[in-house]
Amino acid sequence: MDKPFKVGIAGLGTVGIGVVKILTQNADIIKQRAGCPIEITAVSARNKNTDRGVDLSGFVWIDNARDLANYDDLDAVIELIGGDSGIAFELVDKALDNSCHVVTANKALIAHHGYKMAKKAEDNGVSLAYEAAVAGGIPIIKAMREGFAANNTKNLYGILNGTCNYILTIMRETGQNFDEVLKDAQDLGYAEADPSFDIEGIDAAHKLCILTSIAFGVKPDFADLQNGNKIQGITNINTTDISYATEFGYRIKLLGIVHKIDGKILQTVEPCLVPQNSPMGIIEDVYNAIYIDSDFVETSLLTGKGAGEGPTASSVVADIIDIARGIKVPTFGVAADGLEDASWADIENISSRYYLRFNMLDEAGVIANISSILKDLNISIESLSQHGDGQGKEVPIVLITHDTHHKNMVKAVELIKELKTCTKSPCLMRIEEL
Amino acid sequence: MDKPFKVGIAGLGTVGIGVVKILTQNADIIKQRAGCPIEITAVSARNKNTDRGVDLSGFVWIDNARDLANYDDLDAVIELIGGDSGIAFELVDKALDNSCHVVTANKALIAHHGYKMAKKAEDNGVSLAYEAAVAGGIPIIKAMREGFAANNTKNLYGILNGTCNYILTIMRETGQNFDEVLKDAQDLGYAEADPSFDIEGIDAAHKLCILTSIAFGVKPDFADLQNGNKIQGITNINTTDISYATEFGYRIKLLGIVHKIDGKILQTVEPCLVPQNSPMGIIEDVYNAIYIDSDFVETSLLTGKGAGEGPTASSVVADIIDIARGIKVPTFGVAADGLEDASWADIENISSRYYLRFNMLDEAGVIANISSILKDLNISIESLSQHGDGQGKEVPIVLITHDTHHKNMVKAVELIKELKTCTKSPCLMRIEEL
Repeated sequence: MDKPFKVGIAGLGTVGIGVVKILTQNADIIKQRAGCPIEITAVSARNKNTDRGVDLSGFVWIDNARDLANYDDLDAVIELIGGDSGIAFELVDKALDNSCHVVTANKALIAHHGYKMAKKAEDNGVSLAYEAAVAGGIPIIKAMREGFAANNTKNLYGILNGTCNYILTIMRETGQNFDEVLKDAQDLGYAEADPSFDIEGIDAAHKLCILTSIAFGVKPDFADLQNGNKIQGITNINTTDISYATEFGYRIKLLGIVHKIDGKILQTVEPCLVPQNSPMGIIEDVYNAIYIDSDFVETSLLTGKGAGEGPTASSVVADIIDIARGIKVPTFGVAADGLEDASWADIENISSRYYLRFNMLDEAGVIANISSILKDLNISIESLSQHGDGQGKEVPIVLITHDTHHKNMVKAVELIKELKTCTKSPCLMRIEEL
Repeated sequence: MDKPFKVGIAGLGTVGIGVVKILTQNADIIKQRAGCPIEITAVSARNKNTDRGVDLSGFVWIDNARDLANYDDLDAVIELIGGDSGIAFELVDKALDNSCHVVTANKALIAHHGYKMAKKAEDNGVSLAYEAAVAGGIPIIKAMREGFAANNTKNLYGILNGTCNYILTIMRETGQNFDEVLKDAQDLGYAEADPSFDIEGIDAAHKLCILTSIAFGVKPDFADLQNGNKIQGITNINTTDISYATEFGYRIKLLGIVHKIDGKILQTVEPCLVPQNSPMGIIEDVYNAIYIDSDFVETSLLTGKGAGEGPTASSVVADIIDIARGIKVPTFGVAADGLEDASWADIENISSRYYLRFNMLDEAGVIANISSILKDLNISIESLSQHGDGQGKEVPIVLITHDTHHKNMVKAVELIKELKTCTKSPCLMRIEEL
């Protein structure tokens, strides 16, 4: 009970400082639960002299984070630097080589290198733990690897990026446009100075890629998402889309979605319309949620804060407690050698109801042209709205389709874009009745 | 990988048969995840000849379930008989004595005897696992013992009884009264022939008692709930309450609630009003939900089916997989020796907004009498509704208070009941802005 479990922390940003605070403030209860004290031995970050608001004087300072992998006597390295290459990669790789447990919040690293690193961890008898990499404080990795371990997953839907959910929420509440809200979010610290990973869906795709691996026992394969045209962000959504979605009784959410189609796995990240009073529709602001449909447990929903100092650090420390308790679970739920190379489905195989908005010059024959395009592609319209300001002006036209093949919708968008009366790039979103 | 993990199942009702189905249908994926095959060796139930719709011929039949505790070579006993005494108690107790792991869905057993059994399991180096005892398919025990292990719990609110939630949902949707809906629920198999454990809140209290233990590291103490007037069911709720709650923008939910007040722990089970479009308000039918507020992870919500063959059996099998994987966590999150005797708060210490309905003869001076009672007890009224049918007839009067001490509300109810114009027992419920 008294032999401490020793950790070294690489990266002292928001999450790293959160880990220091939890391990200090909740030391007593953590000791009771872990069965031994958790002791921070060494820390490392880019700049030693930054004032981080906590006392770090009791820990050995390591100038080069890579050296933590070789530091004497550490039971686990906590990697909170980020990025799928560079120092983060080298530190984790070396620590595993040295049979040191690794805890990380680095979704990019796991999405890109998860399989090889899992193999190395298992070969060396240590854990590679990453609860904090997906959905901050929500214990979704544990729920899927252990809680739902008796089940075959059928479908999974996740609101996995707090920044996007915050932006979409504020756009709806204030009527402000995307650029304004993004700027405010940056000022408030809810969005990065370079927000592209968030708003273009890359961050959500890293997380989805990891969940896909656990859900279906396959090697994580970020390339499938990246190269298969399966990642769509929220930059194309405007105030018109937000108000029409509301008018139709929906909310727009950036979803990570994975399911099986004819034995193949389809993973996508895309903004979707979901019913506004549904369990996913009411998830607002920076909250995350994961909705899982499995063969025996049926539907489950887990929600909570997806980012921030407390929630993310809480998951990092939970992983440390697990390791200190001696809990060992295969990195992706089955032994790395048992992970299969997935057979990935093409996005064209989706069939769904769709929301489609395009902006047209309000001229005679516009609706006739569009109707003809849709009819030729066998797309059946459930409802259509055009609130025009007057002839010759630009008006948004919004329609909801009945169940339609994705490839037909994409073809329709291409043909509509070619019409000379079309003034802006159309916005196409799936409707998910979650 | 090939040495099987052998289990014996006691009790072949809905959940027991569900366990047989999962272990058969999902044998391949379970073997991959557990690292070895899970093999059902022996089964036992009251009647061997009942047609249960599954083939049990491959398993040894044990006439007396108690004998499973001594059956050769079992790695774990799965107890699905139920009840806090009798065969279930004897089987679990004996299996632990024999250093055999135990998995159970028996909330009454854990609520009443959890501490002593945890001690015995730990002394003998085996697991006493009970994920299925609380909230069916929701991995709430794992989330609290492991996922949120870095946190101090502040508050916990649970919709823990599917039968009550179903009855309240149908009453609202159809306008039918409690007795009618209960009868339909019994006909549909959603309520037991003797529904008292469900509708009087005992079942929810068993579950809450277990969650309280994990949340605060204390010995489970069902007597505190039972003897402290802390369990209130839903039998006193009528159609008037349902419609008024809706009119005020709320839904009525039977909640298990636990929090600390001035260093003491208060656990109660009671119907409450929660906002209708809130995360708890939208949990309907047989669904369960647990809302947890912790110091670092902040608010989390887990929802899913709280009962039934698939979800409950899924949790039983998850526990088996954990044990087969070698995962060992103290029964209530900290070693049994470290569990404290809680200092329990009295229910009178609650302060809350309240909903109060009473039925009065519509005579002159009725409102004046009541106003006077409330004023003397320092109870401030936020709103009051009386829709009368005519003088001399019975009318419901409904009021919402500002923040008020529980003991003052109880006193008010007593005094109102004594008025000779009061025709029915009043209905008092807390309002929780979850």
